[in-house]
Amino acid sequence: MATGNSKVTVQGRSERVLKGDLGVPVRDVTLTNGERIELYETAGPQGHDVRVGLPPLRRQWVQERGLDPVCNTQLAYARHGIITREMQFVAIREQVTPEFVRAEIASGRAILPNNINHPESEPMVIGRNFLVKVNANIGNSAVSSSIDEEVEKLTWSVKWGADTVMDLSTGANIHLTRESIIRNSPVPIGTVPIYQALEKVKGRPERLDLSVFLETLQEQAEQGVDYFTIHAGVRLRYIPMTARRVTGIVSRGGSIMAKWCLHHHKENFLYENFDAISALMAKYDVAYSLGDGLRPGCIADANDEAQFAELATLGELTKVAWERDVQVMIEGPGHVPIHKIKENMDEQLRLCHGAPFYTLGPLTTDIAPGYDHITSAIGAAIIGSHGTAMLCYVTPKEHLGLPDKEDVKQGMIAYKIAAHAADLAKGHVGAQLRDDALSKARFEFRWEDQFNLAMDPEIARQYHDATLPADGAKTAHFCSMCGPKFCSMEITQQIRASISDAPEPRDADRALDASREGMAEKSREFAEGGGEIYVDGAK
Amino acid sequence: MATGNSKVTVQGRSERVLKGDLGVPVRDVTLTNGERIELYETAGPQGHDVRVGLPPLRRQWVQERGLDPVCNTQLAYARHGIITREMQFVAIREQVTPEFVRAEIASGRAILPNNINHPESEPMVIGRNFLVKVNANIGNSAVSSSIDEEVEKLTWSVKWGADTVMDLSTGANIHLTRESIIRNSPVPIGTVPIYQALEKVKGRPERLDLSVFLETLQEQAEQGVDYFTIHAGVRLRYIPMTARRVTGIVSRGGSIMAKWCLHHHKENFLYENFDAISALMAKYDVAYSLGDGLRPGCIADANDEAQFAELATLGELTKVAWERDVQVMIEGPGHVPIHKIKENMDEQLRLCHGAPFYTLGPLTTDIAPGYDHITSAIGAAIIGSHGTAMLCYVTPKEHLGLPDKEDVKQGMIAYKIAAHAADLAKGHVGAQLRDDALSKARFEFRWEDQFNLAMDPEIARQYHDATLPADGAKTAHFCSMCGPKFCSMEITQQIRASISDAPEPRDADRALDASREGMAEKSREFAEGGGEIYVDGAK
Repeated sequence: MATGNSKVTVQGRSERVLKGDLGVPVRDVTLTNGERIELYETAGPQGHDVRVGLPPLRRQWVQERGLDPVCNTQLAYARHGIITREMQFVAIREQVTPEFVRAEIASGRAILPNNINHPESEPMVIGRNFLVKVNANIGNSAVSSSIDEEVEKLTWSVKWGADTVMDLSTGANIHLTRESIIRNSPVPIGTVPIYQALEKVKGRPERLDLSVFLETLQEQAEQGVDYFTIHAGVRLRYIPMTARRVTGIVSRGGSIMAKWCLHHHKENFLYENFDAISALMAKYDVAYSLGDGLRPGCIADANDEAQFAELATLGELTKVAWERDVQVMIEGPGHVPIHKIKENMDEQLRLCHGAPFYTLGPLTTDIAPGYDHITSAIGAAIIGSHGTAMLCYVTPKEHLGLPDKEDVKQGMIAYKIAAHAADLAKGHVGAQLRDDALSKARFEFRWEDQFNLAMDPEIARQYHDATLPADGAKTAHFCSMCGPKFCSMEITQQIRASISDAPEPRDADRALDASREGMAEKSREFAEGGGEIYVDGAK
Repeated sequence: MATGNSKVTVQGRSERVLKGDLGVPVRDVTLTNGERIELYETAGPQGHDVRVGLPPLRRQWVQERGLDPVCNTQLAYARHGIITREMQFVAIREQVTPEFVRAEIASGRAILPNNINHPESEPMVIGRNFLVKVNANIGNSAVSSSIDEEVEKLTWSVKWGADTVMDLSTGANIHLTRESIIRNSPVPIGTVPIYQALEKVKGRPERLDLSVFLETLQEQAEQGVDYFTIHAGVRLRYIPMTARRVTGIVSRGGSIMAKWCLHHHKENFLYENFDAISALMAKYDVAYSLGDGLRPGCIADANDEAQFAELATLGELTKVAWERDVQVMIEGPGHVPIHKIKENMDEQLRLCHGAPFYTLGPLTTDIAPGYDHITSAIGAAIIGSHGTAMLCYVTPKEHLGLPDKEDVKQGMIAYKIAAHAADLAKGHVGAQLRDDALSKARFEFRWEDQFNLAMDPEIARQYHDATLPADGAKTAHFCSMCGPKFCSMEITQQIRASISDAPEPRDADRALDASREGMAEKSREFAEGGGEIYVDGAK
């Protein structure tokens, strides 16, 4: 178990500091005025050999508890009133009490996805009453990318703040790729097991059955996958509802199951055998991410009958999973115009008993391929502000190709913005501290602090230097937008100085009247003492 | 006056068609399946010599009406029940009736900003019941950029869809820069005249007075500026309300007026002389963009007393302007967290008598300098969906430096996405046609159509080709995300074929039960007829 205060430089003046006995990581930003800001940190231990993998932080915790085939999940412990080490860990990360974490997990409103066989992960929690989380998808396909590239994308994703990573590989070497990813991941790993099951039946969906599926789950659970996307809600009767859609079924897993159902004209075998699947997952504490196989793939199909019919079934399955103490989150769309977003959250809450919602965007328009990290960050911020617990990122390559490293970064940053905007909107304790620190640095022309508090310090510095490269410009009381004579920040500082005994804003009018004489005096002082002034900002 | 059906290729398969006698531009996208989609077009006539400027489309219209020093504005005509050529033009552009346009302008809910001395502009309308518009800011400052660069940014902005452009120049050659911009602009041009007035008094705000300000307005109105940002709402009594803010006053114009007020300890001379200013603007039909000099510059300052006090004053001034038949829109913030955005729109509607709202973003968090086109596109889409009529773009360089061409493009695209997402949310007639056409092309693997309907065809094509460059891949029934064996689009097409007599979605369940036998039959056919299938989409 990691302890102490080892520090690793991450970027700029930021440092990764391990906090307390549990070794909880925080990013520590020290400002030039001596203030310190602690930020949530996902990057994991640095500098390890990827062939060896990360240290197994949680192995001892799991061993200490011992294995119990009946009660082995965080949900089971929570329901029995037990606060695990993992719950203590996330309590420190989220700055709440351990009992609050336990109660949220016990109620099903939050999950702590940590397979007992993924001891390398640093515990985190997904739930509407915690910080909004972001998932990054990686994974190779039949036509592109290698294992090394995928591990590099993993490391890159968590550097930029990914809270979980899904390995969506469909091509060659699925097992080995996943092994490398899990052993090197400080965050929970999710998969869609049906992809590998399909490989095992040579790509013929109709040949899938429960035995090959359970065998696949077992293999992946043993490796340490923390959550499985399972499309058990694609029921036979719902498939015709998609026939008149503009884009039909756009989920891979959903379409595989739809083809299976139609071929055999039988009910989805994942639905029929959901309890057996849950029993297997409980042994490893793998969480469900109940897949939305019938999610809308375009604006025209949003919030339709197929989508909400499946959502109701996911709610029904949630209760089955909870009977086995298996943790559950629910996947959501997709493509949804702004005015239909809230209904998605409302229906999910109504139908799924409070289980966390985990949405892909949603994209708020279909017309900007190449910029779908933006079309979807808009939807993600909105649905996050309504209570969605985790946002699955979308990269600029969505609909067009496989993301490279730069795409992963662009997707991550757009989604960290969406998640943080949602945290602010939800009034999450402490979320605004970083905004306030950065804005104060901006107002006081502390450029270096502004850069170091930014989501991407390097780009912020680079953009500043593109117009004003001189080192002196980083301490100057103006910037390139307005030049030295037009800086509003500077003039406000003068205004503040001129009203040095500034009244409380609410009393401002009264106070102003009362001190009209004093103001006239101040006015004279201002005129006499004033040198050149500045004005800034757009307009 | 341009007539006929002259066509100019704009991009890809898109063409600019002048429609009817009025020569209204549309972008005409012809698809490979023979369908045509008409898109709103802002790029203006192509291929002209920038030293000569654009042809004066509206000169004849203005001359035909004759000049009347009392009744000379679009608002005056609208109030007199007169439908101008400009109103007819925008009616075609917006696909509404000319009478609807007239009534919206007459009520003050919309403006048609077209200085009679800017005959080169193609009329457009700004109002909550029309398409949401986007403004691009350009302009040089004391430390950067030349006239040629600014004209190039103008042309570049309108190519990417800017509906109006503001020239915010503060440096040398303000007059000449503006002249080049107006003569080459097919869209209305806005300015902040106090910047030039300040140059005339050598950068000393306290030396400003009504006479230098009116002289500046006269000069710019003569040139053809279509709307003026005027910070008449920064009243003396509101200034102390900003003293305890985290970032004080962030508007340049606002801080100039604040300094003037404090120096003289007098009421804002723009407020005191608002009727005289309005009288001058009426002569040229220059519209007001009433500046929000006290807008919040950070999350902490959003929706505070200073901001809403000023907004109430802008509402008061709106009525004064309307007395003179001067058109008015109201500027809004700034930096606002998601949960406080709607209150901005609600208060603006309540206080400003329905005049169009024109907001800068708002940015939904302060922590991502370098990505503020995204932090603010989120806020812009939300406030647009609530009824904001025009969105002022923010580029990635916001807070850091002056935007270059690439920044202008990134800002424009983020904001065209926000505006379109808002149009969809408002259920604007026809807005979804483009989404549906693109999604249908996507579903049918018509890659070229998908690119040509995209907001940025070039990037969409480039991203696709990055993984699958072969020409054959553009007609393939799969893409690089999933490879040939995993395409959900393809499998849905098979599902659709297998349920060829697909029931209406709403009756699906009933129909399915009724035709259970038929389905079993279909299932056999499907199994017998099935070749290899595909599955796609993320998860």
